[in-house]
Amino acid sequence: MDIKDLKYDANGLIPAIIQDAANGDVLMVAYMNEESLRRTLELGETVYWSRSRQEFWHKGETSGHTQKVSEIRYDCDADALLIKVEQEGAACHTGERTCFFRTLDQ
Amino acid sequence: MDIKDLKYDANGLIPAIIQDAANGDVLMVAYMNEESLRRTLELGETVYWSRSRQEFWHKGETSGHTQKVSEIRYDCDADALLIKVEQEGAACHTGERTCFFRTLDQ
Repeated sequence: MDIKDLKYDANGLIPAIIQDAANGDVLMVAYMNEESLRRTLELGETVYWSRSRQEFWHKGETSGHTQKVSEIRYDCDADALLIKVEQEGAACHTGERTCFFRTLDQ
Repeated sequence: MDIKDLKYDANGLIPAIIQDAANGDVLMVAYMNEESLRRTLELGETVYWSRSRQEFWHKGETSGHTQKVSEIRYDCDADALLIKVEQEGAACHTGERTCFFRTLDQ
């Protein structure tokens, strides 16, 4: 699979699920375009496309909470990525280890 | 968090990451709207909104490969769900246990 053949959405984005390589916890979901995925592969650390700021976002560049890529998988439809990472510090901007720290009341 | 207060996208959808409650494997990503999430909560099994067919999709209704919900989490931005499930059979329509069965060559 060439990264240009992945199925990006109408905005040129593909969701990336970020999973802790050490314990399997899902840490966050972010979005990549082809160029940010290319930079991720080159750098060996996650680089996203920030939908709110409309710019590349090298995770941890300012906080130090980088994510070293250990594996990248893609799904059967090639429209989602699963990236296993070695997470430095907290993945969430709140300081929590994972962005999914709250449970929906059922 | 009331499910109506989650952040759905312009199409009224929110991505749901489905994780195997037993071993932590990420099985698939699918999309829900508010009504499919409500049905999921009522039924205790995942009900998605199929973007390709534009209809509700009770996972496993025909295949028997249902997903019993054990926990629903939402992220810091409330624009993504993490649902831990007890997966019956294969999650993927290809017959693979997980949709993420392929690794991107790096």
